[in-house]
Amino acid sequence: MSDRLVKPLKGIVPPMITPMTGKDEVDIGGLERLIEHILDGGVHGLFILGSTGEAPDLSYRMRYELVERVCRQVAGRVPVLVGITDTSFVEAVNLACHSDKCGADAVVVAPPYYFPAGQPELLEYVEHLVDQLPLDVFLYNMPSYTKLFFEPATVKAAAEYSRVIGLKDSSANMIYLHDLIHNFADRPDFTLLTGPEELLVESVFLGGHGGVCGGANMFPNLYVKAYEAAISGDLEMARKLHKTIMLIRQTIYNVGRYSSSFLKGVKCVLSCMGICDDYMSEPFHRFRKEERLRIQSILEELILPKL
Amino acid sequence: MSDRLVKPLKGIVPPMITPMTGKDEVDIGGLERLIEHILDGGVHGLFILGSTGEAPDLSYRMRYELVERVCRQVAGRVPVLVGITDTSFVEAVNLACHSDKCGADAVVVAPPYYFPAGQPELLEYVEHLVDQLPLDVFLYNMPSYTKLFFEPATVKAAAEYSRVIGLKDSSANMIYLHDLIHNFADRPDFTLLTGPEELLVESVFLGGHGGVCGGANMFPNLYVKAYEAAISGDLEMARKLHKTIMLIRQTIYNVGRYSSSFLKGVKCVLSCMGICDDYMSEPFHRFRKEERLRIQSILEELILPKL
Amino acid sequence: MSDRLVKPLKGIVPPMITPMTGKDEVDIGGLERLIEHILDGGVHGLFILGSTGEAPDLSYRMRYELVERVCRQVAGRVPVLVGITDTSFVEAVNLACHSDKCGADAVVVAPPYYFPAGQPELLEYVEHLVDQLPLDVFLYNMPSYTKLFFEPATVKAAAEYSRVIGLKDSSANMIYLHDLIHNFADRPDFTLLTGPEELLVESVFLGGHGGVCGGANMFPNLYVKAYEAAISGDLEMARKLHKTIMLIRQTIYNVGRYSSSFLKGVKCVLSCMGICDDYMSEPFHRFRKEERLRIQSILEELILPKL
Amino acid sequence: MSDRLVKPLKGIVPPMITPMTGKDEVDIGGLERLIEHILDGGVHGLFILGSTGEAPDLSYRMRYELVERVCRQVAGRVPVLVGITDTSFVEAVNLACHSDKCGADAVVVAPPYYFPAGQPELLEYVEHLVDQLPLDVFLYNMPSYTKLFFEPATVKAAAEYSRVIGLKDSSANMIYLHDLIHNFADRPDFTLLTGPEELLVESVFLGGHGGVCGGANMFPNLYVKAYEAAISGDLEMARKLHKTIMLIRQTIYNVGRYSSSFLKGVKCVLSCMGICDDYMSEPFHRFRKEERLRIQSILEELILPKL
Repeated sequence: MSDRLVKPLKGIVPPMITPMTGKDEVDIGGLERLIEHILDGGVHGLFILGSTGEAPDLSYRMRYELVERVCRQVAGRVPVLVGITDTSFVEAVNLACHSDKCGADAVVVAPPYYFPAGQPELLEYVEHLVDQLPLDVFLYNMPSYTKLFFEPATVKAAAEYSRVIGLKDSSANMIYLHDLIHNFADRPDFTLLTGPEELLVESVFLGGHGGVCGGANMFPNLYVKAYEAAISGDLEMARKLHKTIMLIRQTIYNVGRYSSSFLKGVKCVLSCMGICDDYMSEPFHRFRKEERLRIQSILEELILPKL
Repeated sequence: MSDRLVKPLKGIVPPMITPMTGKDEVDIGGLERLIEHILDGGVHGLFILGSTGEAPDLSYRMRYELVERVCRQVAGRVPVLVGITDTSFVEAVNLACHSDKCGADAVVVAPPYYFPAGQPELLEYVEHLVDQLPLDVFLYNMPSYTKLFFEPATVKAAAEYSRVIGLKDSSANMIYLHDLIHNFADRPDFTLLTGPEELLVESVFLGGHGGVCGGANMFPNLYVKAYEAAISGDLEMARKLHKTIMLIRQTIYNVGRYSSSFLKGVKCVLSCMGICDDYMSEPFHRFRKEERLRIQSILEELILPKL
Repeated sequence: MSDRLVKPLKGIVPPMITPMTGKDEVDIGGLERLIEHILDGGVHGLFILGSTGEAPDLSYRMRYELVERVCRQVAGRVPVLVGITDTSFVEAVNLACHSDKCGADAVVVAPPYYFPAGQPELLEYVEHLVDQLPLDVFLYNMPSYTKLFFEPATVKAAAEYSRVIGLKDSSANMIYLHDLIHNFADRPDFTLLTGPEELLVESVFLGGHGGVCGGANMFPNLYVKAYEAAISGDLEMARKLHKTIMLIRQTIYNVGRYSSSFLKGVKCVLSCMGICDDYMSEPFHRFRKEERLRIQSILEELILPKL
Repeated sequence: MSDRLVKPLKGIVPPMITPMTGKDEVDIGGLERLIEHILDGGVHGLFILGSTGEAPDLSYRMRYELVERVCRQVAGRVPVLVGITDTSFVEAVNLACHSDKCGADAVVVAPPYYFPAGQPELLEYVEHLVDQLPLDVFLYNMPSYTKLFFEPATVKAAAEYSRVIGLKDSSANMIYLHDLIHNFADRPDFTLLTGPEELLVESVFLGGHGGVCGGANMFPNLYVKAYEAAISGDLEMARKLHKTIMLIRQTIYNVGRYSSSFLKGVKCVLSCMGICDDYMSEPFHRFRKEERLRIQSILEELILPKL
């Protein structure tokens, strides 16, 4: 294990969006600016090629390029986690090996998401995968996209493999996360992070280690401060920052229709801020002019004054 | 509105189980003991004929008897809320009128749960219902049983009717509850309660008014103390009590299979405590001997020492 | 068992809509006209108080009145089946006893639909219920409304009780129905009917006994002829009538939004035909003028010329 | 368009399983034997790299190899369709181009299956994809795996692109397929195939063009004969063959647990027949000895005597 990756991993680990200028082209300048923008916010790690990174929609060529560029630029300042979730076992292992060579610190893996597996099948999958991986692994619970929960008993069993060092939960089901926290009371080294930023504060209050907050692409320091308020027990500050997080949800993430609104909103804000292009991979598309104008006015009138 | 029912309603409002001795027979002595047991815990209200009360499974005759007995015995010591959720509009109104005559303080209504309605249909339903009700109304969001969310915009619109004074959310989706809290920031009189007891502490930390905790049938004071710790910002105490709440979940509610385990566990504990019979209405049945022995040992060895 | 009810029950058994003039008032003249209209079409039975009959939305008073009026008027011309599906076991038994006294031939029961039961719980429920019923029983598989499948193994086990004489499947899952037909190859007396009229022809081709077609409220003879074409192997005629059935689906059932469109369309057509009122029980409402005009023109220009 | 591919494509187009000897190794001899076994059954096309082909679980290297080998060996005897469904637009286009070079006749595409898209987003996706494809396209409706229906209106709109020549429906929802058949009554060139083999006979009776039957890997001629019986209106023969198809479902596909049972059963039978290896890609695994013995005895005692 990389010595940058202290166990458990605590704090804010933004799931980085992928800046692109076209169907198979990284926005190179945008990527550099984005990484610096995020790191400047004081985050505790960087997670690339997750759902927010549109990983499943990218060509493998681009995924490889991205790992390389990000690792090179981060250069050890924070741990880099790479999503290798794949329906193909072979491609997942290949990407993990590439990530290792590039200097990444760990990989993140959700269940293979085409065929629904039973829990014993899923556990066996993790076992076989871990055997072939050169890096430590965070499990990734993402039932709305993968159709499958990592049930608590499966997580507990998987955590017996020394390579499995934590879990990111994006289920938005706080009872599930509390179940895990309770089950891992005897394993203080096992990292438990929450995905939805709206749940960051409460999860940290009650034993979670931090958040993989999509909004931290835009406003990294807001989430870092919310984490710090929660971990230090500053209830008043935590509530205040939680309100801003809810405001972002109800405005920026609410401009489009469909479940792609969140991602379109984040990319549009980053484009308005001059950080990177808001090109999106198929089947999605950047906001049109009208929606962009709404995002701009939300940003300037509502959000920035609160930060 | 009853002057016992201060707006918003804050604290712990247990959803009372229904003590029975047979298919259509109230356990009269058990009911009396249960009410006193719960009120002794310092709760802030009592909610009867909800899901935990097995209301949809009871005959109407028994529902009417129950309202009468409970109102008589509580005698104004705390507000009594009566669940009138029904697929039949006429029966819902009839039960509300009976509740009013018996001295209940408010009614609670989830969407009619056989035919799935669209949101505009649901809003119109609430409008028509409220028109005919003699008591104030709490909406009840219970999507896993009713197949329907009260979407935030529908709740906001329904709250325009002065009779609609609050909502109980049993979705276990904290983002939904945060959305409501955020949307009702301008309506401090509108009550927002959470159903799942595992989410009580965090919901109160972040602006919710309290909980409708099933476990408060067994250990009312535990939940009252958890509420008080949360409302007063005593993070350490709140965490400690939250752990006990999680322990109850992972032991008592986990003895049976199927989603009926929660209810069977609560009734079995109350029976072990000598408070009331654990008879359950169809299609469910009380725990058999082996499961009862496990409940008993969980109770004595794990839970009671923590209280 | 009534000697009107030959086993298996074959043919078209329309799920009668409930004619009403107001919230708790039967449209008495409309009911009489509707029954004669349906029987004139040559149907093989009549099923009242099902989903199409809005049964769960009616007061019990009205359900009792309806059973009485329908049995009296049908007067043994065809078997009358009464839906007793209820979340309350006691109310289900009560309605079955009333149906027996009024001269009904059988009852129809879907799983209790509020709390989701496990399959063993469901089987036990059927066992206990059947014990207390004075009439034979058809099971009713309606997973979209009850959240629960009658799994094939459960049906097979339930069919061991002599009172359980058949099943109506409204799942729209033809593989499920084929599974049942295959499993009951050794039980030619066990009735298997399909709910969705779009599947009538193929189910009869491949071993089903007939259909509980909602459209038969409007055009009973169309479905009787489609059944006869299928049972006699007249493929060409069956295809032609199936096309008309699909046309009805894509026009009449497609005027409104939400899943209530089917029921609103059927009631509106019956009103346009002068047969009965199109009042609907909460949470639904009859079509407004504009939609009624569309129904009228669909009826006159598209459907009637095909019949 | 290849002139082998007559519009509409009628008959049986088996979704070929992928014979493998290890994680990233094609079972070359097995593949050759399997292709000849299937073609000997008189099928009307061959569909590779679908769900039954475990396509999403294979490395891209293996997918490319497979397309090449299959096209070379089929050598124009029947049309070859290649599944290119992918979460990545770029990879889908690349595989289509490779398929074109290898001599495939068409491609098959389901919605990108990680992020759920709205229907307008899905239609736009098809439009953009079709623009870049060198081959004609069959849409593939597979909601249980992709979480998304190709709604009838979307299919109708997509069919305006001349490259979109048909749809394979694996929803098992016959009303959906009837809706499509009805909507495409004016487009006799547009192919409509059904996925689940249990629905083959009825879909062909009522206007469908044939089936993509997984069982045709094992017993191709059974499904060809069932298709021919249905298309020629031989009801008695069709019923008899349908019964055998149901028997296969209830025995061979029913040996394992989880939804992977179907695929494990098919591969195990092919191995028992000496045709190819039953190695499966992660997260699944071939049947163990006990299950294999059951498959063997089912095959010899129940199925083969019926063929």
